[in-house]
Amino acid sequence: MISESGQKTAVILLSGGMDSATVLAIARQQGYQCHALSFRYGQRHQIELSAAQHIAQQFAVKQHQVIDLDLSQLGGSALTDDTIAIPRQETSGIPVTYVPARNTVFLSIALAWAEALNAMDIFIGVNAVDYSGYPDCRPEFIQAFEKTANLATRAGVESRPFSIHTPLIEMSKAEIIQTGIKLGVDFAQTITCYDADAAGLACGYCDACRLRIQGFREAGIADNTRYR
Amino acid sequence: MISESGQKTAVILLSGGMDSATVLAIARQQGYQCHALSFRYGQRHQIELSAAQHIAQQFAVKQHQVIDLDLSQLGGSALTDDTIAIPRQETSGIPVTYVPARNTVFLSIALAWAEALNAMDIFIGVNAVDYSGYPDCRPEFIQAFEKTANLATRAGVESRPFSIHTPLIEMSKAEIIQTGIKLGVDFAQTITCYDADAAGLACGYCDACRLRIQGFREAGIADNTRYR
Repeated sequence: MISESGQKTAVILLSGGMDSATVLAIARQQGYQCHALSFRYGQRHQIELSAAQHIAQQFAVKQHQVIDLDLSQLGGSALTDDTIAIPRQETSGIPVTYVPARNTVFLSIALAWAEALNAMDIFIGVNAVDYSGYPDCRPEFIQAFEKTANLATRAGVESRPFSIHTPLIEMSKAEIIQTGIKLGVDFAQTITCYDADAAGLACGYCDACRLRIQGFREAGIADNTRYR
Repeated sequence: MISESGQKTAVILLSGGMDSATVLAIARQQGYQCHALSFRYGQRHQIELSAAQHIAQQFAVKQHQVIDLDLSQLGGSALTDDTIAIPRQETSGIPVTYVPARNTVFLSIALAWAEALNAMDIFIGVNAVDYSGYPDCRPEFIQAFEKTANLATRAGVESRPFSIHTPLIEMSKAEIIQTGIKLGVDFAQTITCYDADAAGLACGYCDACRLRIQGFREAGIADNTRYR
């Protein structure tokens, strides 16, 4: 859809972390009118939603929706189950912080909103380089979802295809940080930590923190993350 | 997963309508231990959830979860927006009762639960013959979703594929009714109508009612639906 202001419209998955903040900045730079979508899904680091709200305001999104969907009801992840500890060291294989099918669920709801808005563009901050072994961050998953989206909706009938944009998919964390800085992302506002406390202070030890710390180091940029 | 009782485990999408009730009966007959999944998604015919509860009990499901997910926040359908009237006559193209990406959203959440349960089988009552022009009831959509599911999850890494079962996909409504009757489905308990009232009484005029009435007629079976 082209909005009244002549801009293309997009739905942006916005968690409040550094990756999705950078994706929103990229979509704005590309001229999209942005509709940001966040989830209160039973995550232990729900404080990320206040980060998402700040970032959405800073980048002047048209609308920011927070959807309530309690994935903790379904179980299966340390991110939604307080009885499973967040690992503080690197683990092999798919980590316990993997939330079953989370990106499929989030993309599906983004698709529902995009279709209702008549927007054909969806942005998600998945990353295949510095990712933590999550299967739903891989390019082949995104391609399969895009194909599904175009069969699932009016698009399949009307031949106006959806695009799933993954501008970070081939970037290192350092490149994401450099890109975000250029586009005005205030990374101090973003919350990456899986175990962030109620004040938004990061643990500094979980997978997400370790990748973030390493990213700032490699980018040669001072890390202004607030650790506890 | 094989349960303690030696049964295979499946997740069944259960709306409370005649199709999903028949699907649950089929899955039970095939020997699955069934986990039924319903959604309070802002549908105007929310009374269907009490039908789902009855059916789940009748077929002795292991667990019945009702997920709250307000799709009316996202707009775009007469089923979730009281200001758009439910058509009482046949319309051409994709009808206003289509809910954007609904089956993709429901299947994604079923996938999340299946993965958490270690169940590789998901059942959904889509139907490509007597369907109402919904793109997300087509076989090609189901195939694409199944492929996506297997890239999205541990399954893709561990080579234990998910199957999306659609036992009704090639059946007429009359065949669905005949199958359900044979397997003990009490269709008087099911709610099909898009505009069912709080007592569960059907309108008799909407798309869903028309297909149901025609199905009973073609099956040569007395229609015990409660109309208002």
